[in-house]
Amino acid sequence: MLGPINHILKNRNIVLASGSPRRKEILEKNLGLNIQIIPSTFPENLDKSKYEPASYVMENSRLKALDVASGLKEKEWFLIIGSDTVVVKDNKIFEKPIDKADAFRILKNLSNNTHKVLTGVTLVKNSINNNDDFKVHSFYEETDVTFADLDDDVINSYIDSGDPMDKAGGYGIQSLGSSLVKSINGDFFNVQGFPCHKFATELRKFIQ
Amino acid sequence: MLGPINHILKNRNIVLASGSPRRKEILEKNLGLNIQIIPSTFPENLDKSKYEPASYVMENSRLKALDVASGLKEKEWFLIIGSDTVVVKDNKIFEKPIDKADAFRILKNLSNNTHKVLTGVTLVKNSINNNDDFKVHSFYEETDVTFADLDDDVINSYIDSGDPMDKAGGYGIQSLGSSLVKSINGDFFNVQGFPCHKFATELRKFIQ
Repeated sequence: MLGPINHILKNRNIVLASGSPRRKEILEKNLGLNIQIIPSTFPENLDKSKYEPASYVMENSRLKALDVASGLKEKEWFLIIGSDTVVVKDNKIFEKPIDKADAFRILKNLSNNTHKVLTGVTLVKNSINNNDDFKVHSFYEETDVTFADLDDDVINSYIDSGDPMDKAGGYGIQSLGSSLVKSINGDFFNVQGFPCHKFATELRKFIQ
Repeated sequence: MLGPINHILKNRNIVLASGSPRRKEILEKNLGLNIQIIPSTFPENLDKSKYEPASYVMENSRLKALDVASGLKEKEWFLIIGSDTVVVKDNKIFEKPIDKADAFRILKNLSNNTHKVLTGVTLVKNSINNNDDFKVHSFYEETDVTFADLDDDVINSYIDSGDPMDKAGGYGIQSLGSSLVKSINGDFFNVQGFPCHKFATELRKFIQ
């Protein structure tokens, strides 16, 4: 999808404002970009109760991207990508589990049900070649995920694998959690933490 | 999902009758199994016109698995997994493109449309511990895939990447083809060539 704009992106510094190895992999392997990782130090302390889930992830992604931009010199980058992913069920936001009991509670809640995964993305383009300010664009993507009916022993053996602890919603669809998921409706990569198709479409419009 | 039957599968020879690196990765990384690859030499020459797509992939998977079983001694294996994947649109089966022009024709056909990916799987369990014959079980999974509206230059730059040529339907959802796909409905791993959730569910019933 990015083939026609490869000549613009080639040899430019594209920075991902997130330490997530899954996002890096999607940008490199699935989109063919060369990415430099500079994790944001933004504390992600927004008051969830004041945001709709879509606004929450877009605002987090924006603050992450701008945080990294503020720490770099203009010539050090061409594009900065901020991103934030949450799991939402019954309008409640689930992030990473705080401990094993929390992981069990979340997975039990998701079992035999459909939830949404929302990822917000912000693109920031440098103003180095003109006199404009930074150009900033935020968007989000959502995907429905339907979990199988999980026995407690399935949940517990999955928690014992260690896979849930660093992941929003307590599961990794790209790792041992994949067989817990019966079906999805939407972009799979969005569930991994980065909406591959929408990013490519928005990026083409943004930098052309 | 396989956690509760790990004690049965552990230290057993599980053979994948397919050389597909994507299937091996799903079985190992997503399902935690140790897999030995022995590609089937079955020529895959069934007359497509005589089968519904679902029967076609199940029959191919069965013939692949039994072909590999017939070449092994009984003590050399516990479980053999055969698998076959096709892309289906307007009841027509698309397999791997034969050349670049064929890849273009297929991708143009899939553009701005929804098609189905069908994977057939056959499980063959050894009879070594009892006097029964082989136990054989076949099933299939289907997933809807919706392509974005692709310009010719997007299709051509994707073909030039080389990605389409070894893949059913001329695209790899797990590699550079991912941004061509707007959304899917069903199991993502099925589109990669192996239905992770259904396999785990069927395997639990099959060997318990």
